[in-house]
Amino acid sequence: MISAIIVAAGKGTRMGPDIDKLFLQVAGRPLIAHTWQRFASVPDIDEIILVVRSGMENAFAELGQQFGLNPARFVAGGAERQDSVWNGLQALSKHSEIVVIQDGARPCTTTDLILRTVDAARETGAAVAAQRVTDTIKESDGATRIVRTIDRSRLWSVQTPQTFRVEVIRAALQAVRDRGLQVTDDTAACEIIGRPVTLVESRAPNPKATSKADVPLIELLLTQAGASEA
Amino acid sequence: MISAIIVAAGKGTRMGPDIDKLFLQVAGRPLIAHTWQRFASVPDIDEIILVVRSGMENAFAELGQQFGLNPARFVAGGAERQDSVWNGLQALSKHSEIVVIQDGARPCTTTDLILRTVDAARETGAAVAAQRVTDTIKESDGATRIVRTIDRSRLWSVQTPQTFRVEVIRAALQAVRDRGLQVTDDTAACEIIGRPVTLVESRAPNPKATSKADVPLIELLLTQAGASEA
Repeated sequence: MISAIIVAAGKGTRMGPDIDKLFLQVAGRPLIAHTWQRFASVPDIDEIILVVRSGMENAFAELGQQFGLNPARFVAGGAERQDSVWNGLQALSKHSEIVVIQDGARPCTTTDLILRTVDAARETGAAVAAQRVTDTIKESDGATRIVRTIDRSRLWSVQTPQTFRVEVIRAALQAVRDRGLQVTDDTAACEIIGRPVTLVESRAPNPKATSKADVPLIELLLTQAGASEA
Repeated sequence: MISAIIVAAGKGTRMGPDIDKLFLQVAGRPLIAHTWQRFASVPDIDEIILVVRSGMENAFAELGQQFGLNPARFVAGGAERQDSVWNGLQALSKHSEIVVIQDGARPCTTTDLILRTVDAARETGAAVAAQRVTDTIKESDGATRIVRTIDRSRLWSVQTPQTFRVEVIRAALQAVRDRGLQVTDDTAACEIIGRPVTLVESRAPNPKATSKADVPLIELLLTQAGASEA
């Protein structure tokens, strides 16, 4: 059985103080509804758990009804992203073998990419969608002076989904919690306990809405996707 | 006196074998005409040198006339990017103090960004437009296995303009040539001879057309810029 956890508990301060980026209207519906739809339309995914800010459960349930999205369960988020993922893991069905973890603010993820991370996670235990770094990367002195050029040939920038065999991510996040560590992405927890993680190359743009500057491209991609479906 | 060198000598194989990306029609004109226009409209820039593939000089001259772009001089490119920049440097006016070097395929660069790199280059000798890395970056084992998470807090991805006091970039590229080295960006030549380079943060998207996937965002940005001018 395959489960998905969509992390939708952050407010995202980089958009501006009063904007909940997950409810930003993009290509005709709130951003989070696009992400949710992407997962709801994958037949292989047997359950969807949305991790939301406490008190927002009803707003998300209404959103699901409004856009005809498959039922999902709602779980309250924690203080940090890893706490939210942890709470989501506690809510998984007992029969869940594979869990696909997704940023709520990353609405262009394709079925193909989701399923390729599932295949890789079945094989090696952990997998993450990623893109090769193509820009020239410099290391600074901490201010604005260049120290050196980084060899980018082995660098990848990671996205979501981050997909795991359930026992692997449970053990990895438990170890991180036991040590009082913070990780910014779920595969970092696997790295800490020495579990292998496989990079799965994204074949299509898969941007995250972090700042307002990200929205036009996302709108364009979602509009194109909608047009090609219609 | 401030000069600009626009490097427009590459064909760009990542777009496909038969596509010259610089002549791709984007927002109503060839990509290179947008880049050229951005520099032609900066009053502080006293001369523009376009480095083009040998035999393409007339095609570029006609393009300039068609779109009413300020006269530019044309110089034939070399085998590699650094050879093309070198050829451009040989063609600078004797009175040139500052040279702004730009990728021809980066058409959204703003006047503000150009002038801030000029100011920084006056001060420290060398400056480059750059963006902080915001993605989580992983190092692979050379294949698709993650080795570690990179601390991104000091990482920047660099763009153009790369802007220099003329004697600084001349000395840096001369040193690189003397040692038979290849550099992928002009500031790397400064790093090799131990000259400081200042990072100048881009405040607006400044993408380069490298693959077809880059074109929709560039089209959107150029269309928006055109609409806000009109």
